[in-house]
Amino acid sequence: MSVTAAPGFAAAGVSAGIRPSGKPDVAVVRALVPAVGSAMWTTNRVQAAPVTVSRRHLAEAQPQAVVVNAGVANAATGRAGEEDAERTAAHAAAALGLQTEEVVVLSTGVIGPRLPMAKLLAGVDEAAVALSPDGGPPAAAAILTTDDGPKTALASPNGFTVGGMAKGAGMIHPRLATMLAVVTTDYPLVEGEADAFLRPAVERTFNRISVDGDCSTNDAVVLLAHRADGARDRSRDASFAAALEDVCADLSRQIVADGEGATVVLEIVVRGAATDAEARAIALRVATSPLVKTAAFGRDPNWGRVLAAAGSAPWNGGFAHLDPDRLRVSFDGTAVFEDGGPTGLVPTLDGADARIELDLALGDGECAYLASDLSYDYVRLNAEYTT
Amino acid sequence: MSVTAAPGFAAAGVSAGIRPSGKPDVAVVRALVPAVGSAMWTTNRVQAAPVTVSRRHLAEAQPQAVVVNAGVANAATGRAGEEDAERTAAHAAAALGLQTEEVVVLSTGVIGPRLPMAKLLAGVDEAAVALSPDGGPPAAAAILTTDDGPKTALASPNGFTVGGMAKGAGMIHPRLATMLAVVTTDYPLVEGEADAFLRPAVERTFNRISVDGDCSTNDAVVLLAHRADGARDRSRDASFAAALEDVCADLSRQIVADGEGATVVLEIVVRGAATDAEARAIALRVATSPLVKTAAFGRDPNWGRVLAAAGSAPWNGGFAHLDPDRLRVSFDGTAVFEDGGPTGLVPTLDGADARIELDLALGDGECAYLASDLSYDYVRLNAEYTT
Repeated sequence: MSVTAAPGFAAAGVSAGIRPSGKPDVAVVRALVPAVGSAMWTTNRVQAAPVTVSRRHLAEAQPQAVVVNAGVANAATGRAGEEDAERTAAHAAAALGLQTEEVVVLSTGVIGPRLPMAKLLAGVDEAAVALSPDGGPPAAAAILTTDDGPKTALASPNGFTVGGMAKGAGMIHPRLATMLAVVTTDYPLVEGEADAFLRPAVERTFNRISVDGDCSTNDAVVLLAHRADGARDRSRDASFAAALEDVCADLSRQIVADGEGATVVLEIVVRGAATDAEARAIALRVATSPLVKTAAFGRDPNWGRVLAAAGSAPWNGGFAHLDPDRLRVSFDGTAVFEDGGPTGLVPTLDGADARIELDLALGDGECAYLASDLSYDYVRLNAEYTT
Repeated sequence: MSVTAAPGFAAAGVSAGIRPSGKPDVAVVRALVPAVGSAMWTTNRVQAAPVTVSRRHLAEAQPQAVVVNAGVANAATGRAGEEDAERTAAHAAAALGLQTEEVVVLSTGVIGPRLPMAKLLAGVDEAAVALSPDGGPPAAAAILTTDDGPKTALASPNGFTVGGMAKGAGMIHPRLATMLAVVTTDYPLVEGEADAFLRPAVERTFNRISVDGDCSTNDAVVLLAHRADGARDRSRDASFAAALEDVCADLSRQIVADGEGATVVLEIVVRGAATDAEARAIALRVATSPLVKTAAFGRDPNWGRVLAAAGSAPWNGGFAHLDPDRLRVSFDGTAVFEDGGPTGLVPTLDGADARIELDLALGDGECAYLASDLSYDYVRLNAEYTT
């Protein structure tokens, strides 16, 4: 499993003393053979320094290593924070025999404080000498903050391997910034191709989950792939795209299941919308409705709240198209609303998963979203830890 | 106070047995002199039958009376529900000596079930004979569902009076549909004018509050005004517009303060945005962020969460403009973030009000929003009452 599942990658995770708990907090992932890569970043207007710096690096070079620290997000730290991120990359590059621009830096943790640079750089040095093809699990542990446990995923369908690790449980804890994922593969790509594979996979997975609807300042997904020599065999591209999406979907689901206070993973499936964009708007609206999420916590198949949310999904300056007379709503396969009124059926919700399906009968638009519920523990986690 | 504060209006509230608790549940408000009026309705794609029917009536005649029932929302009831709403209006019109189209019907309560017509029509008859200029308070009590208490407001600045009543505490209780308000005035208007006054007042008040970000199927605000004879004196129009906005703002604030589980009323003020529309998008995003709302419950001046929410305010297919280096964030007047970093100040939040100000220093766009916090009681109210 994990980020070193594919041959040609090494990783390490160490405790550098950045997290007050003393838990592991610095991870390094490094390609052992020439790599190409891509990343997708938070679209928040407030972007952390490592996001700004790593974007610049990726515009100039192909990434060969990723350095992650947990505990301090290096967000809202201004120009000084950017210098810290740049210095981290330069230090790691020197330790690993790379160019500074070949290093991606990621941070997660508290927003506001500066990085403790002496600790961090010592941690990078320690991790650099500990790099190993067996280092995936310690690396996956060293990127966590308030996660319950590490999140790793693997797909190996067709003579190649895709492995990944992620962290994230919502933007929890005062000022903790959220979701990171690193995925590696020995499927060979040429320069510039990684983005074309990563983008649709992320769009259909990490971009369709919601713990609390809040978008962090540090979100990042990084893909490293073996560099193909010259013209490459494209016969397995579809298989690679599917495997990459599988790994991203697996990590995404683990993030939702480990969401703050989560007791159930809701799958919201919208079909028959006028367009895919409207299906997505409706799925997102239902997935982020506090009323739908508290009902899910209460295991209440509350279709009235689903209807009200679906009917007010922001789209194109108004609301996404929806005709209540054509709409069909089901919970776990049992229709609760159709032909303009309730069916009278009351499905029993229990267990750790629930599926809410909306068929709009307007077109071919589809989207599926994963969301956690809204529980007492969510409130406790986010209200009790005051600054 | 209340909806009969202005001369020329009568109201009544009675217990018709629609609410299982036996509490008052049918209210009638009637103009005693010729009136003109207007209404604004939920923009949800799923609209309750009374909304559909009353819209039609307002297109055909000037409203002279409003009939409200609590307990059953008559929403998601299809064609049969519309017939029930129409029959209610016709019955009330006969009792009051009006045309059916001169009656506006409003419902609030559980989504799904049909109206208990025998009880409702008997209640309308009882209310019709009880109509009185002193009937404002019983009417305000008869439109409530899970509200803690009645919501009324009054302004009388310049020789005329604006009085109103409202209900709403979020779209709480399984399938309860939300917010209603009726406002009356003796300020004389000619036909077609009421809308031009009501729309901006609602836009700046009821449309800028959020308990849970959920938009109900039954929301309605109705204004009844004395009908002016021919050309009218316009010298006090600005004064009337201000009084109308004051009454709407007062009722709006009462709804937020009575929001489910609310322990604090948050005022989110955005200034210096590129445009008013972007100011509004940012204020709405902050007002509906579960992380900001749980922090408020914990009385945590958590500017990191405010930053992350403000930076991801959906606008025009992307996010509203925001430059963290120019942004200034204050809690209750104390700056916590400016010049791209934290000020280090930690304001003490206590009491039942808190003010979060964001100055973007990009332009002249402004918007203020009121929101309640997200507490254990919010989760309890919305999760424990299962269907």
